[in-house]
Amino acid sequence: MTQNWNQTALLVIDMQKDFIEDGSPMLVKGGKDIVPNVIKAVEVARKRGILIVWVVREHDPLGRDVELFRRHLYTAGKVGPTTKGSEGAELVDGLVIREGDFKLVKTRFSAFFSTHLHSVLQREGINSLVITGVQTPNCIRQTVFDAVALDYQHVTVLFDATAAATPDIHLANVIDMKNIGVATPTLQEWSESKA
Amino acid sequence: MTQNWNQTALLVIDMQKDFIEDGSPMLVKGGKDIVPNVIKAVEVARKRGILIVWVVREHDPLGRDVELFRRHLYTAGKVGPTTKGSEGAELVDGLVIREGDFKLVKTRFSAFFSTHLHSVLQREGINSLVITGVQTPNCIRQTVFDAVALDYQHVTVLFDATAAATPDIHLANVIDMKNIGVATPTLQEWSESKA
Repeated sequence: MTQNWNQTALLVIDMQKDFIEDGSPMLVKGGKDIVPNVIKAVEVARKRGILIVWVVREHDPLGRDVELFRRHLYTAGKVGPTTKGSEGAELVDGLVIREGDFKLVKTRFSAFFSTHLHSVLQREGINSLVITGVQTPNCIRQTVFDAVALDYQHVTVLFDATAAATPDIHLANVIDMKNIGVATPTLQEWSESKA
Repeated sequence: MTQNWNQTALLVIDMQKDFIEDGSPMLVKGGKDIVPNVIKAVEVARKRGILIVWVVREHDPLGRDVELFRRHLYTAGKVGPTTKGSEGAELVDGLVIREGDFKLVKTRFSAFFSTHLHSVLQREGINSLVITGVQTPNCIRQTVFDAVALDYQHVTVLFDATAAATPDIHLANVIDMKNIGVATPTLQEWSESKA
């Protein structure tokens, strides 16, 4: 079987302190538990030569580029969630951007929404996406549905390297994604796969 | 209280025979039950002078404009789901496009994906959307998340004028949408609301 990992990209979505660390304003409850698996997914991807795309939110200090329903979190004199340059916008410990990786800043749930991600991936000849990070109903799912709409040939969500506020919400969203043809292996299953 | 229904549009999504009628290839199980409520929602909208947008799928006979994962349903000599011009692409009985309504053809889940819907709504001064139709996890939800990403001020999903294959899937998706600030009243509640 021919391996074609050079046509695959791993997207690591929103693994930033403000979403993952205890007490942070935008905490995704299930996020901390998957950090080890996201780290392993990145390791597997590096070994395979898979392009790693670090998808992060970085917002204007006044929140002018955030969704309307969250704009109230950004007020003068207060540092809003994942404000550009703030500590909360940094990746959690254990995840490091290396040379050759690609960093993609987004301001909405989907990594494709008003970004140049699709053109970058097309230029690199990527037709398969593997998704990790938080959180399942929002940034994960929106990115996945857009990838399907954009006709990526294979879209894979690593079941135990993605997370939501509760296991129920995670599972309900995974089922919806399976129903539109998305693969949802565990990290272990994906690590043992050939393509 | 000032009513501003001229800034509101009602989107009626995919209420086509191939998604709703018994035995159709793309049947959404819960679809038939909501037809009376969708009809009522349209009546309420007409009385209020709300712009009605009929969002439908119409596909190329060979499926060249359909999602990859469904392209196998379109083969030469066979009429695929909601093929342009086919009976299955028609609205179900009881729903009629009238003069002044707007018909929007889409080829993906979200009504905003690669369509001119947003520019049309902006030109009409619309900042509030009310969503009806099928099905909750796919076309409804994707349209709703895109509307939130596009900063529509009010996004409303009529709880009992939208449907999925099962009540569980419907409810799980409604909860996710509530969690990003979407209103989810019943048809009755919406009909009695002032704005």
